[in-house]
Amino acid sequence: MTPESLARTPTPPYWAVMFTSRRTVTDPEGYAETARVMADLAAAQPGYLGVESVRDAEGVGITISYWASEDAIRAWKRVARHRDAQRTGRARWYEDYVVRVARVERAYTLEDSPADGL
Amino acid sequence: MTPESLARTPTPPYWAVMFTSRRTVTDPEGYAETARVMADLAAAQPGYLGVESVRDAEGVGITISYWASEDAIRAWKRVARHRDAQRTGRARWYEDYVVRVARVERAYTLEDSPADGL
Repeated sequence: MTPESLARTPTPPYWAVMFTSRRTVTDPEGYAETARVMADLAAAQPGYLGVESVRDAEGVGITISYWASEDAIRAWKRVARHRDAQRTGRARWYEDYVVRVARVERAYTLEDSPADGL
Repeated sequence: MTPESLARTPTPPYWAVMFTSRRTVTDPEGYAETARVMADLAAAQPGYLGVESVRDAEGVGITISYWASEDAIRAWKRVARHRDAQRTGRARWYEDYVVRVARVERAYTLEDSPADGL
């Protein structure tokens, strides 16, 4: 994932949607195209703070999107083109997934973490 | 990541530690061995609920570990062998990382999500 693989989020609190999934082998082009469109659409939503997304060679992926509020998450979930993508994802692209919505309470980076550890 | 790529976590609330990182190219064997040892050690900690971990071909990884409480997270962070691994990670294995600690408020899976979407 490039160019910005680590999201530069503000000081907590803020919200995170963790989406862990296992892809089917179905329709890689359709999936990739929709993933691109959804990433752009999410980035234009009010309250969007950033995203981090990784998928490995076995088709297991984790995408975490960051949001200013729970309301911003709810609004994004209801966007019509996003709802269409969710339906198709459920029917075609994902063998299994878990969605978790969480409130980020604290965060630190390599730069600002204490010298004696992570 | 196998065999259990999606963690089977209990009904929220519970806690999550999201660790997003970019690996250096340094010491892949040492890194892999320590990652294995730490995964086993974490799984034996009180309050551990599960882990999900993915790294892509470019070396960007997301690992999310799930915990029953914030105290369980603090206790795991202080385990001596884990502290050693954190120090080495900072010095050798990671080019950059972000750690975020969050309280999971709600969750759903493919099985129990509404039929009209994710």
